[in-house]
Amino acid sequence: MIVIMRSNATADHIEAVLERLQEYELKGHLIHGEERTIVGVVGAAIPPTLQEELEVFDGVQETLRITRPYKLTGREFHPHDTIVDVCGIKVGGNACVVIAGPCAVESEAQIIETARAVREYGATMLRGGAFKPRSSPYTFRGLGELGLQLLAQARAETGLPIVTEVITPTDVELVARYADVLQIGARNMQNYQLLEEVGRTGKPVLLKRGLSATFEEWLLSAEYVVAQGNPNVILCERGIRTFETATRNTLDLNAVALAKRRSHLPVIVDPSHGTGKWYLVQPLALAALAAGADGIIIEVHPDPDRARSDGNQSLTPENFARMMPPLRAIAAAMGRSLVA
Amino acid sequence: MIVIMRSNATADHIEAVLERLQEYELKGHLIHGEERTIVGVVGAAIPPTLQEELEVFDGVQETLRITRPYKLTGREFHPHDTIVDVCGIKVGGNACVVIAGPCAVESEAQIIETARAVREYGATMLRGGAFKPRSSPYTFRGLGELGLQLLAQARAETGLPIVTEVITPTDVELVARYADVLQIGARNMQNYQLLEEVGRTGKPVLLKRGLSATFEEWLLSAEYVVAQGNPNVILCERGIRTFETATRNTLDLNAVALAKRRSHLPVIVDPSHGTGKWYLVQPLALAALAAGADGIIIEVHPDPDRARSDGNQSLTPENFARMMPPLRAIAAAMGRSLVA
Amino acid sequence: MIVIMRSNATADHIEAVLERLQEYELKGHLIHGEERTIVGVVGAAIPPTLQEELEVFDGVQETLRITRPYKLTGREFHPHDTIVDVCGIKVGGNACVVIAGPCAVESEAQIIETARAVREYGATMLRGGAFKPRSSPYTFRGLGELGLQLLAQARAETGLPIVTEVITPTDVELVARYADVLQIGARNMQNYQLLEEVGRTGKPVLLKRGLSATFEEWLLSAEYVVAQGNPNVILCERGIRTFETATRNTLDLNAVALAKRRSHLPVIVDPSHGTGKWYLVQPLALAALAAGADGIIIEVHPDPDRARSDGNQSLTPENFARMMPPLRAIAAAMGRSLVA
Amino acid sequence: MIVIMRSNATADHIEAVLERLQEYELKGHLIHGEERTIVGVVGAAIPPTLQEELEVFDGVQETLRITRPYKLTGREFHPHDTIVDVCGIKVGGNACVVIAGPCAVESEAQIIETARAVREYGATMLRGGAFKPRSSPYTFRGLGELGLQLLAQARAETGLPIVTEVITPTDVELVARYADVLQIGARNMQNYQLLEEVGRTGKPVLLKRGLSATFEEWLLSAEYVVAQGNPNVILCERGIRTFETATRNTLDLNAVALAKRRSHLPVIVDPSHGTGKWYLVQPLALAALAAGADGIIIEVHPDPDRARSDGNQSLTPENFARMMPPLRAIAAAMGRSLVA
Repeated sequence: MIVIMRSNATADHIEAVLERLQEYELKGHLIHGEERTIVGVVGAAIPPTLQEELEVFDGVQETLRITRPYKLTGREFHPHDTIVDVCGIKVGGNACVVIAGPCAVESEAQIIETARAVREYGATMLRGGAFKPRSSPYTFRGLGELGLQLLAQARAETGLPIVTEVITPTDVELVARYADVLQIGARNMQNYQLLEEVGRTGKPVLLKRGLSATFEEWLLSAEYVVAQGNPNVILCERGIRTFETATRNTLDLNAVALAKRRSHLPVIVDPSHGTGKWYLVQPLALAALAAGADGIIIEVHPDPDRARSDGNQSLTPENFARMMPPLRAIAAAMGRSLVA
Repeated sequence: MIVIMRSNATADHIEAVLERLQEYELKGHLIHGEERTIVGVVGAAIPPTLQEELEVFDGVQETLRITRPYKLTGREFHPHDTIVDVCGIKVGGNACVVIAGPCAVESEAQIIETARAVREYGATMLRGGAFKPRSSPYTFRGLGELGLQLLAQARAETGLPIVTEVITPTDVELVARYADVLQIGARNMQNYQLLEEVGRTGKPVLLKRGLSATFEEWLLSAEYVVAQGNPNVILCERGIRTFETATRNTLDLNAVALAKRRSHLPVIVDPSHGTGKWYLVQPLALAALAAGADGIIIEVHPDPDRARSDGNQSLTPENFARMMPPLRAIAAAMGRSLVA
Repeated sequence: MIVIMRSNATADHIEAVLERLQEYELKGHLIHGEERTIVGVVGAAIPPTLQEELEVFDGVQETLRITRPYKLTGREFHPHDTIVDVCGIKVGGNACVVIAGPCAVESEAQIIETARAVREYGATMLRGGAFKPRSSPYTFRGLGELGLQLLAQARAETGLPIVTEVITPTDVELVARYADVLQIGARNMQNYQLLEEVGRTGKPVLLKRGLSATFEEWLLSAEYVVAQGNPNVILCERGIRTFETATRNTLDLNAVALAKRRSHLPVIVDPSHGTGKWYLVQPLALAALAAGADGIIIEVHPDPDRARSDGNQSLTPENFARMMPPLRAIAAAMGRSLVA
Repeated sequence: MIVIMRSNATADHIEAVLERLQEYELKGHLIHGEERTIVGVVGAAIPPTLQEELEVFDGVQETLRITRPYKLTGREFHPHDTIVDVCGIKVGGNACVVIAGPCAVESEAQIIETARAVREYGATMLRGGAFKPRSSPYTFRGLGELGLQLLAQARAETGLPIVTEVITPTDVELVARYADVLQIGARNMQNYQLLEEVGRTGKPVLLKRGLSATFEEWLLSAEYVVAQGNPNVILCERGIRTFETATRNTLDLNAVALAKRRSHLPVIVDPSHGTGKWYLVQPLALAALAAGADGIIIEVHPDPDRARSDGNQSLTPENFARMMPPLRAIAAAMGRSLVA
């Protein structure tokens, strides 16, 4: 950590900083510049709260942290890619995954029909929500455990592993009984009790980035899961909230390329939520793989105009089928493939 | 709702829209403009998902909702101000409230000392966190139930009602046993299970606006609480996330004035989180009352440079004392007072 | 346009709206819903200011525009792709362009060396700034006309057409004498005098999206150029400003795919400014083509650590060379090529 | 400046940094921490581009600037408040200014009537645009020089000094002949030619903050004006662009309080643009003074529903009159007054 003193800081101000450092068995190296003095903090264990403490000292202008706060999820001390195994499917390896399915499980016919269609066209996992967080209390909030049972039935019929969201800590045990991948939604990215609970299951976790989460906060949330001894985290970029209203969110592919560089965890992309418009899903799915993503997660609904949520960003099975050949071509251009 | 057809929409496209409306026993009024046709949807009960359904119809360019989605929290059907009673203190009446205390309860000495100081200088309630959501798994996360007990002790010694955060549904019963006001933090504004759980207690709820929540989403989250039969919601603006990094957040006083106009609920402001800098707390606290807020919530710590969280945005008791006379003067200029 | 009346609007309120419409020879069709009345406005020519006028009428809740405000740049009345010809190179056709060069022209050696290198590795145009807008008055602001002369010399030696920025209306004539494409920078996207001036030259214009410009504002700025009778506009997405600070800007590839759908103009992408980090340039350049862009513009500097601006986002010629084969592979996967 | 080396940086990497510093006659002080080394840069004159240069060195993780880049506008070396004299009216002194008038000058009757009304109710200067920057090429763009003449006429009749916008460098001489304060609009905050041109006039300049300008960029733009030898800059906060759409912009009063602390320049607030809704103007005008602003600038139009721009954010003269007593009360509560 660096402590920048004000240009008018006195010797006493500097001394007070050094004394506080000593309390923590840290050393302060002084650099006397033309305009001001800065203090470099050196020591084995800098307490996480030290920065905030020093910022309110008299004579201190600013403090700067120089180490990234995420340790377990960063690449610095873990250079090799983590590969998450989902029922034998490798997420984060050379082959990219395609997870597809409806926003919400609505009925047996709907989920079975969708599962069959997406498997036929090349999807490698099935997505579908049984518990749905919704902004308004007046909209459809999912079928609950019945939805989980229907997902399990769809898995039995198609062999596709299931990705489904869990929205509250007390549901984790229930959802984990059915799901192959536990999804943490964007609104829950900083629901720390939930993160720790899914961490304790040891099951693969798909962690969506929050709507206004910084890159660093996203990795710190992954850190919560990994800190429970569960390294099986798949990061998922799904669009951030910006001033732009022409699309539902702004898909941040910068963050995808940066995550591949700074973290060893696999990264996938959700262009359905990331754009909010079905006709932008294909171009952004292709862009995601080209930016280095390890896969995509896509909303597909047999009848989008009757979907009980997110219809306008869902592909029909036909549009999904049409997207797969260009997706394969992009994967090949990247020297990769799609999971068979 | 309005459905805007594309300029090249055919009669069949329009017919399909009208048929779907009929399924829901709604009527469509056609307006044939120079360039395109629009369909006005009329009927007693427009299903919440209709907009999404119609958006994916062929020939439809866009759909527009014309009614605000929040019903119970809006002023349109509830014109008079709601006043929330907290142990006899009226929040939302003519007198403004001042809630003060540390970010986190750290020790008996700290919370008792702070409670006495803020009461002496004029605070009307005590704030303090026993359960703290933190971005990093490596920082202080609160004393838990011990923290609640210390708050209760502070209340016993000073008479100040307690405002404290609850962060997960299973803790609601515990926290409600101690707290006079249940605080929902910004990160949990869309934790719907938690909103419903605090709704069911019937206790006053202080609902912080999420970091990137729109005005409408904020009111919809309040709607979740009120829909449980609990009208005692106090809205709290605490700064939104923008591109600006010179301050921790951007305090949105536009939203405060708008909330007073569009909603009947009381609105308070948190300039500590809203600015992130102790020296901006006073000017923004004054501005909050001038914008029409019903009170403020302020972080005060006896020793900010040893605070275990948010030290750099906490006032010392002395600075808190200094802020009170100008705050009273602004309240008076607004024709109001501070709660005695 | 649609005018939504408040639920408590009176017959007189509605009558006042209808009278105002009559003044403009427009008709108002009334739709009486359960809760409120809406007025559909029909007529040949709705004045651009009508919306603002009606919004302040008593009894009016809101007004909604239903036609997109960009006419000349939109695809609705101009369905076929515009192809901009730059010295024989077709921008917007099947082959994608690669524009490369330093942020600023610094010296003869620097620009000639860079021009030769990027031509050798496959660039099709040369970029380089002679006039640089800079946030601080204390940084390098370009060589001015000398820079233009050096660019012309580089063109003479390599045959590469020149793309260079013009930053003020009075420079347009000078810059147009040297440049093959006039670049409008992000900060000037709403400098309307400048837009009209470059419009009047008839020369190809590369219009960068403003840092916080909405999609619609971007097209409206293009509209300013085209309205001068100059259809040769190339849109350029270069990253928007969001809350994220891990990258310099957030590259918005949603906007690229949307621009290809809603506008007939060619669209290119600047991943150098869009990310601000040289090591993110390649993945985002690939992603840009996969999202449907018609080309990219890239900063290349022979010696980035001595660049007088934007060194940390510039590729070395070697890194540029390394990027070209994967770029070709992605173009091929999209059924396209790079301009030879 | 601080240079943070990577944890795996070699002695050669560090040596290369030190050599570059020597080229500029700077010294590097090394601090060897547990994980990595940092280099503190010391010397009389650090070149503005050094940071970018070093960021691309091998082994360098990051560089951090420790001095604020604005020198002339910062309070550090100029602790006393600057007071700008406009025809005898002191902006930045104890009394607050109220600048009022229409968005655009539309006719003699409109501007004279408005000027008389606002003077009667207590305004101290008249605002009105003769040159209007507009997003769309199809809307009203001002009366040009005729507008300036009408403003001069209004000044002659009322004695109110004139604030009016100049939008392009070649107009500065013309506008300066009529105006008492030259306004730089938000879209032109980074139009550096224009800033320098108004700087050279020596006239008072009202510098609006750009829609997405950071606090630091805003002060740097003021720096451009002051660097021309013109210290008469009035900063004006007018709302920033955020994700929120319920209001036209988000008025950033944090920035106002921060500007009063970090800069010696006077700061005023524009709640008309800052909110975009006439009914939010009064609460935010009051809040602005309470946050420490030195005045406000308000849109007033005799007939908002016939205004040719910004009608929905303009006050009627009656509403303006109603706002003045509470404004005076807030100023008094702050120990200030309004300019008589």
